[in-house]
Amino acid sequence: MMKIQHNVRDRRKRSLMKVRELIKLIKMVLGCGSVAQAILSRGLFGGIITINVGFAMAVVMAIYVTGGVSGGHINPAVSFAMCLFGRMKWYKFPFYVGAQFLGAFAGAATLFGIYYDGLMSFAGGKLLIVGENATAHIFATYPAPYLSLTNAFADQVVATMFLLMIVFAIFDSRNLGVPRGLEPVVIGLLIIVISSSLGLNSGCAMNPARDLSPRLFTALAGWGFEVFTAGNNFWWIPVVGPLVGAVIGGLIYVLVIEIHHPDLDPDFETEQSEDKTDKYELSVIM
Amino acid sequence: MMKIQHNVRDRRKRSLMKVRELIKLIKMVLGCGSVAQAILSRGLFGGIITINVGFAMAVVMAIYVTGGVSGGHINPAVSFAMCLFGRMKWYKFPFYVGAQFLGAFAGAATLFGIYYDGLMSFAGGKLLIVGENATAHIFATYPAPYLSLTNAFADQVVATMFLLMIVFAIFDSRNLGVPRGLEPVVIGLLIIVISSSLGLNSGCAMNPARDLSPRLFTALAGWGFEVFTAGNNFWWIPVVGPLVGAVIGGLIYVLVIEIHHPDLDPDFETEQSEDKTDKYELSVIM
Amino acid sequence: MMKIQHNVRDRRKRSLMKVRELIKLIKMVLGCGSVAQAILSRGLFGGIITINVGFAMAVVMAIYVTGGVSGGHINPAVSFAMCLFGRMKWYKFPFYVGAQFLGAFAGAATLFGIYYDGLMSFAGGKLLIVGENATAHIFATYPAPYLSLTNAFADQVVATMFLLMIVFAIFDSRNLGVPRGLEPVVIGLLIIVISSSLGLNSGCAMNPARDLSPRLFTALAGWGFEVFTAGNNFWWIPVVGPLVGAVIGGLIYVLVIEIHHPDLDPDFETEQSEDKTDKYELSVIM
Amino acid sequence: MMKIQHNVRDRRKRSLMKVRELIKLIKMVLGCGSVAQAILSRGLFGGIITINVGFAMAVVMAIYVTGGVSGGHINPAVSFAMCLFGRMKWYKFPFYVGAQFLGAFAGAATLFGIYYDGLMSFAGGKLLIVGENATAHIFATYPAPYLSLTNAFADQVVATMFLLMIVFAIFDSRNLGVPRGLEPVVIGLLIIVISSSLGLNSGCAMNPARDLSPRLFTALAGWGFEVFTAGNNFWWIPVVGPLVGAVIGGLIYVLVIEIHHPDLDPDFETEQSEDKTDKYELSVIM
Repeated sequence: MMKIQHNVRDRRKRSLMKVRELIKLIKMVLGCGSVAQAILSRGLFGGIITINVGFAMAVVMAIYVTGGVSGGHINPAVSFAMCLFGRMKWYKFPFYVGAQFLGAFAGAATLFGIYYDGLMSFAGGKLLIVGENATAHIFATYPAPYLSLTNAFADQVVATMFLLMIVFAIFDSRNLGVPRGLEPVVIGLLIIVISSSLGLNSGCAMNPARDLSPRLFTALAGWGFEVFTAGNNFWWIPVVGPLVGAVIGGLIYVLVIEIHHPDLDPDFETEQSEDKTDKYELSVIM
Repeated sequence: MMKIQHNVRDRRKRSLMKVRELIKLIKMVLGCGSVAQAILSRGLFGGIITINVGFAMAVVMAIYVTGGVSGGHINPAVSFAMCLFGRMKWYKFPFYVGAQFLGAFAGAATLFGIYYDGLMSFAGGKLLIVGENATAHIFATYPAPYLSLTNAFADQVVATMFLLMIVFAIFDSRNLGVPRGLEPVVIGLLIIVISSSLGLNSGCAMNPARDLSPRLFTALAGWGFEVFTAGNNFWWIPVVGPLVGAVIGGLIYVLVIEIHHPDLDPDFETEQSEDKTDKYELSVIM
Repeated sequence: MMKIQHNVRDRRKRSLMKVRELIKLIKMVLGCGSVAQAILSRGLFGGIITINVGFAMAVVMAIYVTGGVSGGHINPAVSFAMCLFGRMKWYKFPFYVGAQFLGAFAGAATLFGIYYDGLMSFAGGKLLIVGENATAHIFATYPAPYLSLTNAFADQVVATMFLLMIVFAIFDSRNLGVPRGLEPVVIGLLIIVISSSLGLNSGCAMNPARDLSPRLFTALAGWGFEVFTAGNNFWWIPVVGPLVGAVIGGLIYVLVIEIHHPDLDPDFETEQSEDKTDKYELSVIM
Repeated sequence: MMKIQHNVRDRRKRSLMKVRELIKLIKMVLGCGSVAQAILSRGLFGGIITINVGFAMAVVMAIYVTGGVSGGHINPAVSFAMCLFGRMKWYKFPFYVGAQFLGAFAGAATLFGIYYDGLMSFAGGKLLIVGENATAHIFATYPAPYLSLTNAFADQVVATMFLLMIVFAIFDSRNLGVPRGLEPVVIGLLIIVISSSLGLNSGCAMNPARDLSPRLFTALAGWGFEVFTAGNNFWWIPVVGPLVGAVIGGLIYVLVIEIHHPDLDPDFETEQSEDKTDKYELSVIM
């Protein structure tokens, strides 16, 4: 009997895994799709505005599809900060991150399929990483020519810091509060502003899964492993930077804002934080 | 007595038919109107952004006008998927599809009238299908030069799949949930992202009525029947592709998301699904 | 005693008049201001998108400021249709229209003042109506070169028809319904789509006060009375066209949509329509 | 005992100070960041639309983060008007303004850090105030070449007047009313329209802290004290103009709109106005 129940729970877990992959897949196809459309049309059917809005709304839709079931996690950096601040249990972390990487990989593959003819005709059948016919930056981020590694790292830390601080605020029911059911839309607006403001240095990945997993895909799909060495081995910046930034951002929010909430009863807090997990777990992004 | 009542119901049905035509007409005029404005002004008073926003908001407004009366159906592919998943009764299907085709045709005619002078002056009185003075793609979609038929078909299947999956989520009251009365706006945001991401290959019709009916209009109005042979007989792709994609998208949503809803009581479900029809029937689109 | 009360009411009426002028003034300054910014910067700090969004949001803000007090009327064509369909009393009509014309005139003057230096330096101190240094179309609408008077008239009729139909739907509480307090924002989205779709022919005035009153201002302020003869005496089209279109649009909504509302009790209706006046009177626009 | 409590309150005040600095910091980094991205990419990854939307959404996010704790004050001109109209106590004024100046300075420094490499490479290591390689206008506003000081002053007065009038309306619960929790988004739309309409003359600062504090930062960071003499000593216009405009705008709202609210009981008013402070104090902006 016990065993059967265990099996049921196992099956449920595996299928929840699929949900979490789905969210990342939706985000990758619709988000990076807007980059593809802008690049492959050489700016004729897309540009910075459709890319920023596209990425933002891709996140919005991904949350609406999976938010009610798996909580809308699409960013390992956010999941990491949540575990660290006791808003998510650590044992869930590897499953979430695993699903995020698998989903991003599957999304990159789907997008590659949809735009296969376009990618092939763009540079005469070649898949390039640099130059005006480059297409690798459809899938992963690359630094601007002027950018040093130090500045690149600071950029990812600060951007993710702002992201976390504001995501924590959006889901903090004791703060101003976004009307229930509209949080995804406000998160979309947040992504629009961050990518309009802090996107110039290196495209504002702010998410290890969103960047590393599709980069691996491009390495395998024909762009070659130079996708990792490009930009002075830039690849690890959008992986490590967001983890550091997420922790700092969460910390600032807790220390500067949460501390002021009137009925701050430590015991009560600890209990509640578990219950409110779903709400907080919804904290997502890009 | 019976007969009178029958007549009343008949009249009501015929007039509901008019409502369903109206929704498609509004969508065609305002949606394709934004394409017309961009093309006829040669990009001066419109472009990819006004087109994407215009089409999206055309759908939003069409739903607000007719949503309370006829449920906002404007896509035969969506209606088809809903019948298949038991969310709409099959006998309604031909009426809905008929109204959608008639409405789209009337909308194309209205738009042709409003921009008659502009269309005539654009290419010296000629109505062209290809070249830089082409105007046929104001009304129906045509493939990008690089696109093979296989890729074109996959494109329509995948795009409509995403559309359905997310529309099902938006109207799934047991998921995260969009606040009541704002669903049309979120659907508008959905159309903005899909057309910004997956619109490059062939304009993202995702709707047999939106594409085939205005194409027929252009054939009759002076562009000639080459509108059907253009692009390697492309015309059937946005008709068949969306039907296939809608079924796959609905299936994925049911199998991956709905299965996780806690109080899943099959009997209760069957009963409910009929009552909730209006809600679901609102699922619309492009 | 009676007389004092009368005086009080008179004063209240005069001050309500000021509110109605204020709404039109806000709309003119912020709406036409976005046109001024685009033209005076020769496209560098504005274009079709900022103009469409600017005009739409100008209306949104005007409604938020005055909606709670005077009902947000800014369009004589809408007021006219409302009187005709018994949703507003005829005796109010001249006061509303008068305020709308005065407000639009004051708004045009304010805008002229804010951009005085810019207007003067734009064409070497000249205020021109035609040519690439023209600035008259900041204030009033002018037809595209290709447009015949017949098409121009049809354009204004059809555009205002769509406007009315959808505004009636947005404020029809028995239809799908926009959440209370968000109607102005949805009206803003409506104006964005109409001006993106039907704005090419002649700028989509759809409002006699918005067009005639600033045109008169430009005639007096230095552009000369050729503003009335330009475009084959175009000036009367955005005055008469919207009145005709508003009536047709309202009629279509009543005949095709309202007729289906379930509890249609004529007596009840007549009573209610008076009470619901505020709600309906909020119907505004451009 | 008294002393301990005093210390606690002191600590709380100091930490609230930090919150108020944070709001200004977020706004500066994300808002001016969108200007930086547009300028440093020479228009390739940004322009008037991303700047207007970026600034607006920066304000939206700043309010969501701090609104629940400190009321979202980011504009000394608004704080000044609120004190004058009895909606905020005067003793708070210096603390608020101090925090706003400190936050804006810290924000300018953060942005300078994030885009350090970009700024350095943009003009060959030079930090310029005028010319096509100028970068000073990322941080503070400068007048258009055609603008006289008189017109510049009128511009700031009128723009801030509109800002105040509409902000007062958005937070006036007896007016039409924005749904609770969505006020920041509507304020964002307001900033989009004002900067699209009245931004050409001198960038529409409308805020002494937003302009003076980053200007001082640029003077110290390497642009030199010519940032104060540039544009015929323009620097004081966006400091004094907004203060005057805010008072006029608030006055117009009170005299033209509030006077019409039905249950205007002066005594009741005075009591209430204190309680409603939080609501009103939320009135923010740019």
